[in-house]
Amino acid sequence: MLVILSIFLSLPVILMGFSGSPNAMAFVQSAAGSLTLGVLGLLVTRGQSRYLKPRYMFILTISSWFLISVLGAVPLYLSDLNLSATDALFEGVSGITTTGSTILTGLDVMAPDILLWRSMLQWIGGIGIIGMFVAVLPFLGIGGMRLFTTESSEWTDKALPRMKTLGRGLLFVYVFFSLLCILVYWSSGMSWFDAVNHGFTTVATGGFSTSDMSMGKFAGSNLILLEASFFMMVGALPFFLYVRELNGQHGVLWRDQQVRVFLFLILVVAVSMTTYRLWNEGGDPLSVFSTSLFNLTSVVTTTGYASEDYQLWGPFAFASFFFLMFVGGCSGSTSGGMKIFRFQLSMMVLREQFKRLLHPRAVLTRKYNGRPVSDEIIASMIAYAFVFLVCLLVGTLALSMLGIDFITSISGTLTALTNVGPGLGEIIGPAGNFQSLPDIAKWILCVGMIAGRLELLSVLVVLSPGFWRG
Amino acid sequence: MLVILSIFLSLPVILMGFSGSPNAMAFVQSAAGSLTLGVLGLLVTRGQSRYLKPRYMFILTISSWFLISVLGAVPLYLSDLNLSATDALFEGVSGITTTGSTILTGLDVMAPDILLWRSMLQWIGGIGIIGMFVAVLPFLGIGGMRLFTTESSEWTDKALPRMKTLGRGLLFVYVFFSLLCILVYWSSGMSWFDAVNHGFTTVATGGFSTSDMSMGKFAGSNLILLEASFFMMVGALPFFLYVRELNGQHGVLWRDQQVRVFLFLILVVAVSMTTYRLWNEGGDPLSVFSTSLFNLTSVVTTTGYASEDYQLWGPFAFASFFFLMFVGGCSGSTSGGMKIFRFQLSMMVLREQFKRLLHPRAVLTRKYNGRPVSDEIIASMIAYAFVFLVCLLVGTLALSMLGIDFITSISGTLTALTNVGPGLGEIIGPAGNFQSLPDIAKWILCVGMIAGRLELLSVLVVLSPGFWRG
Repeated sequence: MLVILSIFLSLPVILMGFSGSPNAMAFVQSAAGSLTLGVLGLLVTRGQSRYLKPRYMFILTISSWFLISVLGAVPLYLSDLNLSATDALFEGVSGITTTGSTILTGLDVMAPDILLWRSMLQWIGGIGIIGMFVAVLPFLGIGGMRLFTTESSEWTDKALPRMKTLGRGLLFVYVFFSLLCILVYWSSGMSWFDAVNHGFTTVATGGFSTSDMSMGKFAGSNLILLEASFFMMVGALPFFLYVRELNGQHGVLWRDQQVRVFLFLILVVAVSMTTYRLWNEGGDPLSVFSTSLFNLTSVVTTTGYASEDYQLWGPFAFASFFFLMFVGGCSGSTSGGMKIFRFQLSMMVLREQFKRLLHPRAVLTRKYNGRPVSDEIIASMIAYAFVFLVCLLVGTLALSMLGIDFITSISGTLTALTNVGPGLGEIIGPAGNFQSLPDIAKWILCVGMIAGRLELLSVLVVLSPGFWRG
Repeated sequence: MLVILSIFLSLPVILMGFSGSPNAMAFVQSAAGSLTLGVLGLLVTRGQSRYLKPRYMFILTISSWFLISVLGAVPLYLSDLNLSATDALFEGVSGITTTGSTILTGLDVMAPDILLWRSMLQWIGGIGIIGMFVAVLPFLGIGGMRLFTTESSEWTDKALPRMKTLGRGLLFVYVFFSLLCILVYWSSGMSWFDAVNHGFTTVATGGFSTSDMSMGKFAGSNLILLEASFFMMVGALPFFLYVRELNGQHGVLWRDQQVRVFLFLILVVAVSMTTYRLWNEGGDPLSVFSTSLFNLTSVVTTTGYASEDYQLWGPFAFASFFFLMFVGGCSGSTSGGMKIFRFQLSMMVLREQFKRLLHPRAVLTRKYNGRPVSDEIIASMIAYAFVFLVCLLVGTLALSMLGIDFITSISGTLTALTNVGPGLGEIIGPAGNFQSLPDIAKWILCVGMIAGRLELLSVLVVLSPGFWRG
């Protein structure tokens, strides 16, 4: 992975040329460092078995995300931005986890190599999480994700070729949608540079932008906002379903329960928010609909763009955005959050409970997408939800202890855990920035972003006493 | 129940005398109405079977809480306070559900019969919920409460005498603690009238007071704050355990897992909040500890007294109070909230999950207080938690649609669902009042208070389509 990263690290210089890349040395040094580390790693582990016990899988997963965050932050640290180590790391973690919170201002006049690298970090993070969803998470059985095991998600020698085929398919789809998104943005009036950057961070549901106004730079164009909404949704759907569609299983995407509820949710919220805003303030219906759809899709898909300060749309919008931050996209996508399927499983348990209250002796079976849902999957889903809320509690209390106000503390923790990007309130809201938070707060949020990206349990299990025993 | 209520309704007049009761006519009329309805009900149902199908149990439970709320509100409506019907109902529901949110101001100079009736409403609500916990809720199997079934919570003819004995024991303990609390308050300097009112609303974890400053009226006395903290905790422990102690099962209270964690939680939060406040503002340690313990105990036990505006203690205290509003006391007590045992069950599932992640083939058994915890109990606990969060979402969105700010909307819904009393923010915070909310908001909160008191599922099941089928 480090060898591949070193190739990516040299791309900004190659693409922009030395003349267009004022921080060329920073990237060359970082690439060289990453390459050296990677080659060393390959030499040390050569000829060793690829089989890993669960507990080593956990350590490997966490440490690689952390290591790549650090290496991704190095060029930012070495650049002419004069960032502190904490700020560089925060930006790196926010990039690779596709969160999109930023500590930088002056993006509109920033060196293009830095901007491109930020977008690339999110693009790498996006394909990284899709790969992990297929190769690692179901195998670890975290937070109900065993629901998504397929014949190709067994770690046997027999399954390996099939997994490679799937991997190639996922990469193809990911690259295809990214290029398509770039083209569409460009054809709608973005400069090539803006189109490439936003294309990268849209499909990765990342949210970094080339402007301090985020997508507000293009807010005059309803078309661009609608296109962005479409591609954020593309990024928030399960990518393995695209591959299946390509392999001839037509309609598998639209028949998927998770996809249907996800799109239905966006539709319902978009319509109610548009109605609410038209009722309250009036305005051009198409523009109100476009900005409503764009900003709520940005939050639900955990992208984190904003076209304006949606906190000013009134209490109903504010409360909606708060709750939307929890939701997240579909499992198997680039988006974070609690994920649609967990709400569906909870709803399933609830319905079952209603039936049982009225007919205590009824025999009930649960099915999700046609597959039975075991009590074990339900238990692991509760464990996830409980851990999520405990992390939210601990993070909020920790930030508030630093003197940060309640809305900033809770929405900051939430936006980190769900990899959304902006929080709520004046400081870190869609019109704000994470720069002014104390360093300790930034570190806490970094831990939150990585833990959130790895479905929490995979990080917390390493902290449990049982992990290090025996 | 209506006949008993009519006796209570005539008590303010009997106790205060016609001279001390400017609203005597209001109470006499209400008592007469309640008595008439009750006697009519007895006549109509005479000789009918006492056995009820689950779905009639649900309807009976909800309608009796609603009816008693309405009848409890009648004297307030007829009184010289000139309340609107909505305001009177809000106060009645807040009373009988032991919530303690109020729309009244000028309590310090209010007619004593009204004040006494408010306190009595909470006292009645307190014993009502204890009785329901033993007689109804475990039988309905709601929200994991089947965990608390005993041999006496079966609805068979054989179990009836045992349940009557238990009921008498509970009533005895409840009356005993109420009288003790009144005596203790009086001996510490409260007037008889204040002692009686606060004694009623402390043990019932209700929170109505005889002053607009709530317990701030006695904030000069650390002793009274500590005593109140103690009796609020008494009210938040499982009452059936007191009865068992009385029946010779010594130590059953201290060995109970729920009780231990509840008291431990209060201790930990009290110590950290005291430390935080001393660090930030300094002050007399005993006074800081007393006010911290008192106000947090008031919120955790869902009583809802305040001795001052604790929102001014800084962001950490604010965030702590927000999260404490969820917790609630022990199941089987007079307090509301999500209840300690549900957090313990979630923690249990989480630990199990950690073990399973590391040892996928391990065989695990769950036990709570020495009793096995079935998957069914876990499922019904999730259903409860999910419904709780959905209600919080729906309530918050509904209130914010009325133009109410986010903190008021979410904390108002939360305080209703958990029967705490005050919310957070300037409007309905510990220094505020529910008077200024729009009427629709008050109705929404009334529904929330009753639903919260009845563990949500028992109310929502009636709204499920399956309930009315067949």
